[in-house]
Amino acid sequence: MSAIVSSSGRPTFSKASPLLRGKIALEEHSMTDHFDATKTLPDSENTSEHAFNDEAYMSDVVKRLADVESRVKDMDASGIDISCVSLTMPGIEGIFDAPTAVSMARKVNDQLHKTYRTGPHAHRFRVWGCVPMQDPEAAAAEAERCIKQLGCCGILINGHSNIGGPNTIQYLDEPQCEPFWAKIHELDVPVYLHPRLPAPDQQRAFRGYDFLLGSAYAFGRETAEHALRLMVSGLFDRYPNCKVILGHCGEGLPFTIHRVDHRLRHSQPGKSGPHKHPLAHYLNTNFWATCSGVQREGTLLDTIREMGEERVLFSVDYPYEDMQELSAWFDGLQLSENTRKRVGFLNARALLKLD
Amino acid sequence: MSAIVSSSGRPTFSKASPLLRGKIALEEHSMTDHFDATKTLPDSENTSEHAFNDEAYMSDVVKRLADVESRVKDMDASGIDISCVSLTMPGIEGIFDAPTAVSMARKVNDQLHKTYRTGPHAHRFRVWGCVPMQDPEAAAAEAERCIKQLGCCGILINGHSNIGGPNTIQYLDEPQCEPFWAKIHELDVPVYLHPRLPAPDQQRAFRGYDFLLGSAYAFGRETAEHALRLMVSGLFDRYPNCKVILGHCGEGLPFTIHRVDHRLRHSQPGKSGPHKHPLAHYLNTNFWATCSGVQREGTLLDTIREMGEERVLFSVDYPYEDMQELSAWFDGLQLSENTRKRVGFLNARALLKLD
Amino acid sequence: MSAIVSSSGRPTFSKASPLLRGKIALEEHSMTDHFDATKTLPDSENTSEHAFNDEAYMSDVVKRLADVESRVKDMDASGIDISCVSLTMPGIEGIFDAPTAVSMARKVNDQLHKTYRTGPHAHRFRVWGCVPMQDPEAAAAEAERCIKQLGCCGILINGHSNIGGPNTIQYLDEPQCEPFWAKIHELDVPVYLHPRLPAPDQQRAFRGYDFLLGSAYAFGRETAEHALRLMVSGLFDRYPNCKVILGHCGEGLPFTIHRVDHRLRHSQPGKSGPHKHPLAHYLNTNFWATCSGVQREGTLLDTIREMGEERVLFSVDYPYEDMQELSAWFDGLQLSENTRKRVGFLNARALLKLD
Amino acid sequence: MSAIVSSSGRPTFSKASPLLRGKIALEEHSMTDHFDATKTLPDSENTSEHAFNDEAYMSDVVKRLADVESRVKDMDASGIDISCVSLTMPGIEGIFDAPTAVSMARKVNDQLHKTYRTGPHAHRFRVWGCVPMQDPEAAAAEAERCIKQLGCCGILINGHSNIGGPNTIQYLDEPQCEPFWAKIHELDVPVYLHPRLPAPDQQRAFRGYDFLLGSAYAFGRETAEHALRLMVSGLFDRYPNCKVILGHCGEGLPFTIHRVDHRLRHSQPGKSGPHKHPLAHYLNTNFWATCSGVQREGTLLDTIREMGEERVLFSVDYPYEDMQELSAWFDGLQLSENTRKRVGFLNARALLKLD
Repeated sequence: MSAIVSSSGRPTFSKASPLLRGKIALEEHSMTDHFDATKTLPDSENTSEHAFNDEAYMSDVVKRLADVESRVKDMDASGIDISCVSLTMPGIEGIFDAPTAVSMARKVNDQLHKTYRTGPHAHRFRVWGCVPMQDPEAAAAEAERCIKQLGCCGILINGHSNIGGPNTIQYLDEPQCEPFWAKIHELDVPVYLHPRLPAPDQQRAFRGYDFLLGSAYAFGRETAEHALRLMVSGLFDRYPNCKVILGHCGEGLPFTIHRVDHRLRHSQPGKSGPHKHPLAHYLNTNFWATCSGVQREGTLLDTIREMGEERVLFSVDYPYEDMQELSAWFDGLQLSENTRKRVGFLNARALLKLD
Repeated sequence: MSAIVSSSGRPTFSKASPLLRGKIALEEHSMTDHFDATKTLPDSENTSEHAFNDEAYMSDVVKRLADVESRVKDMDASGIDISCVSLTMPGIEGIFDAPTAVSMARKVNDQLHKTYRTGPHAHRFRVWGCVPMQDPEAAAAEAERCIKQLGCCGILINGHSNIGGPNTIQYLDEPQCEPFWAKIHELDVPVYLHPRLPAPDQQRAFRGYDFLLGSAYAFGRETAEHALRLMVSGLFDRYPNCKVILGHCGEGLPFTIHRVDHRLRHSQPGKSGPHKHPLAHYLNTNFWATCSGVQREGTLLDTIREMGEERVLFSVDYPYEDMQELSAWFDGLQLSENTRKRVGFLNARALLKLD
Repeated sequence: MSAIVSSSGRPTFSKASPLLRGKIALEEHSMTDHFDATKTLPDSENTSEHAFNDEAYMSDVVKRLADVESRVKDMDASGIDISCVSLTMPGIEGIFDAPTAVSMARKVNDQLHKTYRTGPHAHRFRVWGCVPMQDPEAAAAEAERCIKQLGCCGILINGHSNIGGPNTIQYLDEPQCEPFWAKIHELDVPVYLHPRLPAPDQQRAFRGYDFLLGSAYAFGRETAEHALRLMVSGLFDRYPNCKVILGHCGEGLPFTIHRVDHRLRHSQPGKSGPHKHPLAHYLNTNFWATCSGVQREGTLLDTIREMGEERVLFSVDYPYEDMQELSAWFDGLQLSENTRKRVGFLNARALLKLD
Repeated sequence: MSAIVSSSGRPTFSKASPLLRGKIALEEHSMTDHFDATKTLPDSENTSEHAFNDEAYMSDVVKRLADVESRVKDMDASGIDISCVSLTMPGIEGIFDAPTAVSMARKVNDQLHKTYRTGPHAHRFRVWGCVPMQDPEAAAAEAERCIKQLGCCGILINGHSNIGGPNTIQYLDEPQCEPFWAKIHELDVPVYLHPRLPAPDQQRAFRGYDFLLGSAYAFGRETAEHALRLMVSGLFDRYPNCKVILGHCGEGLPFTIHRVDHRLRHSQPGKSGPHKHPLAHYLNTNFWATCSGVQREGTLLDTIREMGEERVLFSVDYPYEDMQELSAWFDGLQLSENTRKRVGFLNARALLKLD
């Protein structure tokens, strides 16, 4: 509490929202010298941010993606103790051929490690490894290297992977991905399922309003559908310890998943897929949600209501979002300080085994 | 309050949830002799309900779509005073050629009127008119006939319309639809934007798990995107009195729309479409949401939080949903009786001008 | 939305909370020349604010109680269109003898009318009449004069009335008050039941911690108990149109009243008082609640949940609270703009018949 | 999920609320042969339950207070694994002279231990020790014996203690109670602060409506005020590990405490007591709340919002409340299964060190 003077000249004693220190942010993006994920891939949606967004905003984003010092400065000003960084989308997943994906993933992981986990700021960062899902066996091997040799906190995947072209894609529940999940289960680390735009030929609903693609609705839709595929595929029945993190308050699923379950009651016996439980069970057992890029209290509270306080995590989505803006929002929410600390950092410390 | 005896033999005095009488349901479906909307259209998604759903469930649904007496009986048992009925999806919108759509819409409207608005139960029903959007001028004319001659409570549209084939579709914001909206604005009646599945070539995310299409996620996604198109198109700036009703707690938009607005802050100047306001403004000004097919309290409460108590309306989605099951859920929610009455019927009475 | 520059030097595009214009505040306090309600009564609790509170704060409060110009300036800066002012507590209710109360009430009403309802700012104010409940017949007559001759928006009563001394008090449900309620029912105006501290001999739980009395818990407890007395007395069964406004989010009743009803199930038949309905029924039918002096979102949302959006009203509790601080909090709450307008002014306009 | 047939003859597939097994209930009451806490004390409020409540209800309550077998049967039918039992109110606290209190507490603890912690049902119960606060040194010694020798899960205190008569009472923050708290701090066990009615001379607001005393409002008011005394006394600054459990969703404090803090901003410097933090800090740090006797979702959710998911605990208040009624309500709440398990038993297991 601090004394301030209101604009009407009256001294008031306003309870200024104090900064919550110690926060951990999980969906924080980076770029490497070897691989500019936003520019190099032909014919992919990876240029969407540039296509729709304001130039000044995007040039600031690009600059910040690679600048460690300004990132640390923003973290200091925002009460963020640790940022978990990843290669920005579409990342390795947007590469069309497998051998390139395999070698690029290795290079990127090495450079992210060098940039963020060595030097004076090493204690302020963790790194999400990237993997070449175009070759699932290689992805499993690279995941193992990331965790065991580079000390990554988990693996981040930008949605579906391109296999040969922009419209030929692979989802993570497809059978050939099994070796990857078996390894993840063994390594016992979380996978962050980061959004990616629907394949170009699946974007018709936005035609004429391409800017809507950049508005995040399309990202969220594609990611929610990807998560539903994981659930109904039986993946979490085969690997019950698999842990998946969704951004953006669970990409809408906390609001909609119960209706999905409600309708699946009526599906033909034996035809609603190999999953063994209602889908909300998996959301409550195998999923975590960050509030990256969301500054709406009702959305956050509904996510907490549907997933429980221990499965919701603070995040920013830097540098697409502003650390201080999102932190000020989060730190100022009128809820229990216990909940704020749990979502702000305690849950992340437990999930990422940071202590 | 009534005395009951618990299974342990102890007399208890349980507060049984009383039936809320006078409810009005807005998303209630019907079939006509002339037009079996679920069966006749080749190569369309209109068979989805049959494809994925349990046979016993679907045969019961089909029987109930056309049976007025069992409908009234269910309404009596559920405290539903008035059902607003419509031709079930995909309805007229699924017809590929315009002349057929024009003549069929007319026949269907006449028969719905005869079935529900004449005879002993006429006071228990209202009818949503259907229109042939494949010919927007004809749609405008039919809308006028529905409202002025048949006394319809508004127009219900099952999402996009097929123009010539299953994958050649028209959204309601496209320029050729202007005459329809001009007429709706003049008639001052609501349009119920009912879900429809994405066009077949836009369903790839569900491939391998076709039952997910019937689970309502795909319906909701397509309808939310349709509603977003209406908002960004500037339709509600041109016709500020246009009123659109969404089912299923606003098809996810109350949870996600603020993030869409949040990202649109960064779109290139002049490139985020002709709309004049943040999208949440339209959701709060031009939209209403029913809780059709939703039995999840958190979802309903978040909808009320984002749209206000006066824009949320009870509904069932009969016969796809069970009137008594959904009514028992709604009548038993622990919220203010004032809110229950407002959502249960007062808002509908005002919106549909039933008094 | 406006562009700002964050302290880290990055341009951001923050959604600044716009001022909600047109707000109406209902629990706003004043002082008159004839009657300094906070100082003159011997041996009463009316000095409590002075006893516990910071001197600088209290001297500012006293100055503002009587200063119309600074009040209007604060209203302008806060988006408050109309303040409904009343004589500050304990007001007429703290006078020990009836004749003094009768004549003082008349003088105060005349002066409040002259100060706030004549002159250049008349359109910015409404006045709550005060009445001498020490003589209920006179109170009824003065209420009629207030409404019919002075154009008051209703009557405000500061809890129990002293009858002869500090510990001999009268609650509004006592039989001798009947003429007052009969007149209120006839006049069809709301009564604002403003808090007052428990009588001195009922304050034992705070002994040793007298500052807790000024912390508002004791005010709220006494007022909630007064409201419960009104409910169980059958007053609202006899006068179903009587409308009572509580401040401070209903003084805790939205949170606790259902447990009271729950326990009353077990009271001896015929011994739970003359009331005909569960107490929550009256809270939903005869009561309104303002958020005066409350800056806690969970408290406001629970009040809305239990009373419905149409029975909750914005207020400040000026000058004990800061108009701009409370307005900034209210205007920045992340809820539907429809709800904000309804609570901010639409409900007040309807209840006070301001249109 | 199970198939049911609705009363309209249609088969439906309702999601029946499954019983949550493993629940732990913390505010469960008992009687002993040596000491009928509800009958023996002259001139005390301990007969209140009998005075206001239905005879059939009270005779059932009295029978159940002492019957272990029917208690276990109810627990089995309700999914309650463990009940933490205590001597029912006013208990030892209602005894006027200290020596009687000291010897009675010892006898009661021995008998509760024998009844509930030996024999075939021992694993289904835990016992709250009672202590003679009329002699705080003896209370400390008895607390130590309870925990170390009898294996009690903590100490339960029924509000203030009578010292010599019905209106001469002692609150737990008074200086002479220090030895008790020092011992509690050393033993590191929680204290359940159970409600008790205000002393007879503090019940004036209910005069004429004595049944309101039994309605729980008065119990809650007195207990909230007692908890506020503990907070402002600085007790938790001196003994930061002291843990206090409140029943009935925190006795209203989650709804009102922020307004208390808000007003204490204005108290005279150095005069707002020896406490070092805002009161909400203690509510979030030293307090837990059970939902005993509360069957209102909004009240529970506001408690979770203000205290965090980990400080809210299931309870019944048996036999004053019905185990199956309250369990069915709790098990059917539409919130995350994770939250339900945490509130249902995980929090209790951690707080009471049951694993």
